[in-house]
Amino acid sequence: MVMAQVALPSWNDGAAKQRIVAFVEQVTNPSSPAFVPAAQRIATFDNDGTLLPEKPVFVQTAFMQKRVAELVKENPKLGELPAFQVFLERDPYYRQRMSKEELIHLVLTTHSGMSEEQFQTSAQAFLAEAKHARFGRLYTQLAYQPMLELMDYLKAHGFKVYICTGGGTEFVRTFAEELYGVPPEQVIGTPIELEFSITNGKPGFRYLNSFAAPFNNKKHKPMNIQRIIGRPPIIAVGNSDGDIEMLKFADAQAAGLAILLRHDDAVREYAYEEGAKGALASAKEHNWLVVSMAGDFARLFPGDSSEPSLPAPVAAALMLESLAYP
Amino acid sequence: MVMAQVALPSWNDGAAKQRIVAFVEQVTNPSSPAFVPAAQRIATFDNDGTLLPEKPVFVQTAFMQKRVAELVKENPKLGELPAFQVFLERDPYYRQRMSKEELIHLVLTTHSGMSEEQFQTSAQAFLAEAKHARFGRLYTQLAYQPMLELMDYLKAHGFKVYICTGGGTEFVRTFAEELYGVPPEQVIGTPIELEFSITNGKPGFRYLNSFAAPFNNKKHKPMNIQRIIGRPPIIAVGNSDGDIEMLKFADAQAAGLAILLRHDDAVREYAYEEGAKGALASAKEHNWLVVSMAGDFARLFPGDSSEPSLPAPVAAALMLESLAYP
Repeated sequence: MVMAQVALPSWNDGAAKQRIVAFVEQVTNPSSPAFVPAAQRIATFDNDGTLLPEKPVFVQTAFMQKRVAELVKENPKLGELPAFQVFLERDPYYRQRMSKEELIHLVLTTHSGMSEEQFQTSAQAFLAEAKHARFGRLYTQLAYQPMLELMDYLKAHGFKVYICTGGGTEFVRTFAEELYGVPPEQVIGTPIELEFSITNGKPGFRYLNSFAAPFNNKKHKPMNIQRIIGRPPIIAVGNSDGDIEMLKFADAQAAGLAILLRHDDAVREYAYEEGAKGALASAKEHNWLVVSMAGDFARLFPGDSSEPSLPAPVAAALMLESLAYP
Repeated sequence: MVMAQVALPSWNDGAAKQRIVAFVEQVTNPSSPAFVPAAQRIATFDNDGTLLPEKPVFVQTAFMQKRVAELVKENPKLGELPAFQVFLERDPYYRQRMSKEELIHLVLTTHSGMSEEQFQTSAQAFLAEAKHARFGRLYTQLAYQPMLELMDYLKAHGFKVYICTGGGTEFVRTFAEELYGVPPEQVIGTPIELEFSITNGKPGFRYLNSFAAPFNNKKHKPMNIQRIIGRPPIIAVGNSDGDIEMLKFADAQAAGLAILLRHDDAVREYAYEEGAKGALASAKEHNWLVVSMAGDFARLFPGDSSEPSLPAPVAAALMLESLAYP
């Protein structure tokens, strides 16, 4: 119980924090019936909306906007495609009408035709300068402080922490090590196909115009966890319907904890249930740990005070404004 | 230099051992220009022929033979297929005429239609009883002792050791942790497609009748290393033409060591160059470290004395005999 006060300082003392600490104490205590050897302590975290804000757009969508601008500069004809016009802010309302094929084409066009080094350079330049529309900070300054502490707390207790995201493997790897302390081999995402070549003795990869595996979402999360890790997570953390299968996978282990972050904080972040209704229903049915951003997080972003930073009506107005972003 | 005598006791003191020890000392010495931070010390080992004998057949081929017998017992009609007859030892010579499609069908049929647990049980039962045709020992007693020591030596110097094999990911995982101390998340192979389901609250995987990714061989080794690890190996160890691209990948790093094991030991194992001629030529061209099984390994299998166990002509005769195995 002393531990519970020292650990996770940006979590309010409450049922959520207590349940996490109690779970970790059980699985790490060799004399507990729920003990899990260190090699089997796998934790998997979703990324967008779980570790970083996903509103008004995913950070990778903001990166795509930058890439669209670059590509149109090189090849103005591309700017005539309706999907590209969305990102050039010429026709933001086309977004709702965009087909799946157009979206895939957009993702592939903005992520391919580059060497791995060029991709990294482009993504890192974006991350070094692009600021979140509402918060006015770099995306890498917007990881939820309580989640950073949870990852550190788990690592300190022998857990191997993975990111398991629908986002691009190569994109998330450009910041996961510095931001989360998660090395590239612990990032599972949706990979762009690549080709290997050796030119003048220098080996390299080039991203091709296709995906190397299906979208890492829903059932593909447990499938890829099995394929790449080969062990189930005993803690899984998510925030949306795309995480349901991964959360069930963890929850169904002999000792397993499924954590669902609920975005109910219009003051400091956003309040929404779209895309998470199925997950919230599953959480209720299976008694998963639902973490309330408003109630359980004492501090949201690194460096914030532990008080809400804006009066609720101001924040709500800002949220509506930023959600109008393409 | 004192280190070199303590480390790698089953390696003869010679140029190969010296080059390995010198390389590891350089990349782990913070004041060396070749220093590599621990997080980037990735080593990748091929499996068949690099860590275990691959003659007369791969261990997984012997497993397939057991599975063929089981499947034919359940469904005798399967035994009429020519590819199955090879494994029933009714028509061993058909093997040379077997098409790629027949081989793929055989691999998929013997590895699918089972849950993950059933597959593990089957593979572990095989490994617990099947003995190598020539050596009369369990396959898990035939890991090359010098390679086990090399893996331990690298781990003790902060390396993360991966298996990167053409063999089935799920098959190699059934023994990699116990035999090599390599956990499942550090086994990269050719994965069988799987499906995820939750039945009565219990999550599980079932192997389907297809591969989830291309054969992890040749250029697919670096591609899968990039996709799964996201960092290049600075040491790669192989023995055949299927390892050339992986060896080039390691060799071309600023500090990189490519190691090719040469099977030139008809006395204690086998002497052959088939399937390795391209790799041997590349090794010569690029000055890779060629390790001679006959000359560099003081002891071959765990528990062996450090003297060759059989006179050369006897061993050669045994080799010919065992190569006639299907």
